[in-house]
Amino acid sequence: MRTSIATVSLSGSLSEKLTAAARAGFDAVEIFENDLLASPLTPEEIRARCADLGLGIDLYQPMRDMEAVPEEQFAANLRRARRKFELMRRLGADTVLVCSSVHPLAVDDDALAAEQLGHLADLAGEFGIRVAYEALAWGRHVSTYDHAWRIVRTADHPALGTCLDSFHILSRGSDPKGIEDIPGEKIFFLQLADAPLPAMDVLQWSRHHRCFPGQGGLDVTDLVRRVLRTGYDGPLSLEVFNDVHRQSEAGPTAVDAHRSLLVLQETVGVWTPPAAVVPTGVAFAELLTPDAAPVTALLGALGFTRTARHRSKPVDLWEQGEARLLVNTGPTGRRDGTGLAAIGLESPDPRGAARRAEALLAPVLPRRRAAEDAPLEAVAAPDGTELFFCATDRAQLPNWRADFAAVPHEPAGLGPQQGPGPAYAGAVRRIDHLALVQPWHQFDEAALFHRSVLGLHAQESVDVADPYGLMRSRAVTNTDGSVRIVLSVGAAPSDDTVHAQHLAFATDDVVAAARRFRDAGGRLLPIPANYYDDLAARFEFADGELETYRALGILYDRDAYGEFRHCYTRTVGRVFLELVQRDGYRGYGAQNAPVRLAAQHTVTAG
Amino acid sequence: MRTSIATVSLSGSLSEKLTAAARAGFDAVEIFENDLLASPLTPEEIRARCADLGLGIDLYQPMRDMEAVPEEQFAANLRRARRKFELMRRLGADTVLVCSSVHPLAVDDDALAAEQLGHLADLAGEFGIRVAYEALAWGRHVSTYDHAWRIVRTADHPALGTCLDSFHILSRGSDPKGIEDIPGEKIFFLQLADAPLPAMDVLQWSRHHRCFPGQGGLDVTDLVRRVLRTGYDGPLSLEVFNDVHRQSEAGPTAVDAHRSLLVLQETVGVWTPPAAVVPTGVAFAELLTPDAAPVTALLGALGFTRTARHRSKPVDLWEQGEARLLVNTGPTGRRDGTGLAAIGLESPDPRGAARRAEALLAPVLPRRRAAEDAPLEAVAAPDGTELFFCATDRAQLPNWRADFAAVPHEPAGLGPQQGPGPAYAGAVRRIDHLALVQPWHQFDEAALFHRSVLGLHAQESVDVADPYGLMRSRAVTNTDGSVRIVLSVGAAPSDDTVHAQHLAFATDDVVAAARRFRDAGGRLLPIPANYYDDLAARFEFADGELETYRALGILYDRDAYGEFRHCYTRTVGRVFLELVQRDGYRGYGAQNAPVRLAAQHTVTAG
Repeated sequence: MRTSIATVSLSGSLSEKLTAAARAGFDAVEIFENDLLASPLTPEEIRARCADLGLGIDLYQPMRDMEAVPEEQFAANLRRARRKFELMRRLGADTVLVCSSVHPLAVDDDALAAEQLGHLADLAGEFGIRVAYEALAWGRHVSTYDHAWRIVRTADHPALGTCLDSFHILSRGSDPKGIEDIPGEKIFFLQLADAPLPAMDVLQWSRHHRCFPGQGGLDVTDLVRRVLRTGYDGPLSLEVFNDVHRQSEAGPTAVDAHRSLLVLQETVGVWTPPAAVVPTGVAFAELLTPDAAPVTALLGALGFTRTARHRSKPVDLWEQGEARLLVNTGPTGRRDGTGLAAIGLESPDPRGAARRAEALLAPVLPRRRAAEDAPLEAVAAPDGTELFFCATDRAQLPNWRADFAAVPHEPAGLGPQQGPGPAYAGAVRRIDHLALVQPWHQFDEAALFHRSVLGLHAQESVDVADPYGLMRSRAVTNTDGSVRIVLSVGAAPSDDTVHAQHLAFATDDVVAAARRFRDAGGRLLPIPANYYDDLAARFEFADGELETYRALGILYDRDAYGEFRHCYTRTVGRVFLELVQRDGYRGYGAQNAPVRLAAQHTVTAG
Repeated sequence: MRTSIATVSLSGSLSEKLTAAARAGFDAVEIFENDLLASPLTPEEIRARCADLGLGIDLYQPMRDMEAVPEEQFAANLRRARRKFELMRRLGADTVLVCSSVHPLAVDDDALAAEQLGHLADLAGEFGIRVAYEALAWGRHVSTYDHAWRIVRTADHPALGTCLDSFHILSRGSDPKGIEDIPGEKIFFLQLADAPLPAMDVLQWSRHHRCFPGQGGLDVTDLVRRVLRTGYDGPLSLEVFNDVHRQSEAGPTAVDAHRSLLVLQETVGVWTPPAAVVPTGVAFAELLTPDAAPVTALLGALGFTRTARHRSKPVDLWEQGEARLLVNTGPTGRRDGTGLAAIGLESPDPRGAARRAEALLAPVLPRRRAAEDAPLEAVAAPDGTELFFCATDRAQLPNWRADFAAVPHEPAGLGPQQGPGPAYAGAVRRIDHLALVQPWHQFDEAALFHRSVLGLHAQESVDVADPYGLMRSRAVTNTDGSVRIVLSVGAAPSDDTVHAQHLAFATDDVVAAARRFRDAGGRLLPIPANYYDDLAARFEFADGELETYRALGILYDRDAYGEFRHCYTRTVGRVFLELVQRDGYRGYGAQNAPVRLAAQHTVTAG
């Protein structure tokens, strides 16, 4: 029989995946949409590459949330589908996978589903395309293959058939016998996958996935409160079977473990450490680099100005608006190349913040680096990043800026923007967020550390697909969002040259900022054209808006709170910079991260 | 409050765990029995180490399968308990954890459970020890904390209380409110662990854990058969979302993927490759080494004799019984140091075996290494091990031994044992099994390869705890057990210097074999004394038997089919050797693997 493989099943760039599939003897591929979006190849180039390799493109996938929706929504869906059918014509693919809807607006109405799928098939037919409708095991109203087939049969359209997927069918325990009642010519496609039976019974859960209190989802605190009410006066003892801890060094794990019990005791009220002092902003970020030139070239092009130099050390202060960067060319520590070494957190009470950190087992760093320096409170985060609790130009408190002497600088071009006053278009206002890559076994520890030591809130974890692996990331923030730290980690130890740290700068006008950067000689990360074709299918933009984003390499996202536009510089050492314009938007562009990561791989490889 | 941590929560040797716990500020530890068994420290030394570190030993754990069993079984349990109480006295630990039984003989009889726990508490009381009874979430009859407490209350014994574990309580969704009804003085211990809520819904299962057909637990074959009956003539297409594949190189993954579809097509009868030719024995194993001396010293001490040398290459043949080893000092390939490079499989039809391997995408190796060599069929396994399909001294077939010229050798000592005839006590009969460490992302691929290409049966996977991580291993065998290959893999990429390959030799008398080896100057892996104390508690031995094992470093296990005795040499490069005596026993001593692995770490570190 003809054999095929979905590109999502393999690692790497789309081009690598196609080559590997052809060499292994496959006759065809399914092109997974995200692989196309992240590829610098045009659809025509992908078509030609497949032809050269002797591979058919037997399926384009997936098209989601199409059917059984209100009329207005369906009209938008048809517009989106037309874009995708045009793309498929360029690719030379004649079958598209439509997954059963998971959309919150989808209704439980088979007749409507059949009618709308019929309309979709009409449109597909105009392009010579067949629609293969598949029941996702977690579809909102259609989750079994026989249900999907009933809808297809009702629609009774020559360009509409069903797609069967062994995982979706067998994972739900459906009886595959009913497949034999479907005419073979109406089965447009057959996707195969096996899976280990979920061995996640309570025994497996216990033996492999326990974690320290506060790092999981069980209400351990409530349980401990109840035990204490009985008069129990024995120890609180941790018994944690965890595959990750088994591979990690015992010392740091033990500290993480003990911190979890301290936090627990604080929460239940039997221990009172110094209260959390929540930081109110980012005073500075410090980059440690063996060669300042590449970093300062980027900063200069972004409109930063070197305003001061440390009185005793090779550290320069670069400023724009309230964004302050220290560029340190002193001896580098354990990290190679340019990296983010320290974060200055604006603190209402630096001494109090440090006392709490110390009580919660954070390693305290020497208060003065040199005799003449201002006494600064600092601790080390689990990943080694130095956290300074400090004050910027505030009365009664040691001022970290006092260690720096102003250097002559012209307000070159438009010059640095001091304070919150009116800015030129595209000026950097402040640091929006800092993204720190964690050692792969310290992700849970880092989240607990930032929550308990700094008093920040931890948001939900999100998974992000990288061409060469999965990343998980989790943001910790203060209430008003003036401190946002994104912790991320790879799925397993691996090459992390691309899993770089980054610094994001907030601007009110990212288009202007990107143009200024480009005009100043900066190069933004190039984003594939396919990404913009997809944006055009997903959103409606004002005339010329999308072309502007495409020309500059600006990415776009939207959530319930507003819009988000952002773009990236090239990577220097282990760091890259981002410009973000968030108009109410609360996230970090996770939707765009796979495209960004693939683009970074392309640049690195190229 | 007093804080404590179970040693199982941390990585490393017991000594490292204690140090890490003390440095992080814990007041006490729970000693996990396996950590003690694997430690070279005596109980008194552990006690002294804890005292030096300021750590109490607040719990010894676990004691299992104690209560609600038939009388005879309970008498044996009390004997076992007495041994453990003696051990606890040496440790200076005064509380022991007893988990609710999971034993198949345990009966659902609370009164009997209470009565027997009362007897156990009587015995404990004699030693000044308290028994803390805990409901395992997966206990056979007692799985909730309130049930365990009712039994403790019924027993009403001062030396019997309950142990609460937040995981066991909350993972079952029990209401912790009832805890407040237990008098605090009857809660002897509180174990804490959190856990992520099982996110393994079908969506997570699909997005992270799909695998290729034949590598999981779904009946994909049956589904495909039914689809084919409909007349479907489209492609078989793989759509596999898998975290491991995302990180692995695309080329080998694609080959593995395509092989899975070929095997599937063979199974459903639409493709007919050459039939599997199941190997009937191990013709030889080939060690590649930059320095033959350490390996040949081991072989000599084990009673092997160098019998022949390859006519054109620096390869020696060493023999004993039907065990044949090639020691190759030619240029080493991709591996560092001494490693297992090739396996000769005795094949009824070498050409047929190679044709099948080739049809299933195994890389075929050149048939002749040199012009004068016998034509040998060989392919590469996924981990790079060369597999030769060959014949030893069989008519009509090229004989691999023809490439070797006999060298003069005395039947030194007792000399090599040729053929199956009567042997001196402790002679090596043949290769019992070969254990190959797989690259961590190729475990599923390797199992499918050995099953489909060689026609071997795959047994269930087992998890084995190493002091620095978990290992998973899975045996593939032919029907009569004359070919046994154990595939193993670490939980994630890590230092694998200890996760070595090994070769196990079968003998009828491992005690005699171990003595001969020692008398010939060989050194066996030293096994901690604590292990033998535990054996004494678990099994009854004839007089002097256990002392013999202890003196030699022989490990012991038993299954439903018979007994198993085995011992290990030191590691050379990436390889160590094992002597096994299996009297009906079908496993590989997985029960003893943690002790063996810890002992290997100790030797490496020491």
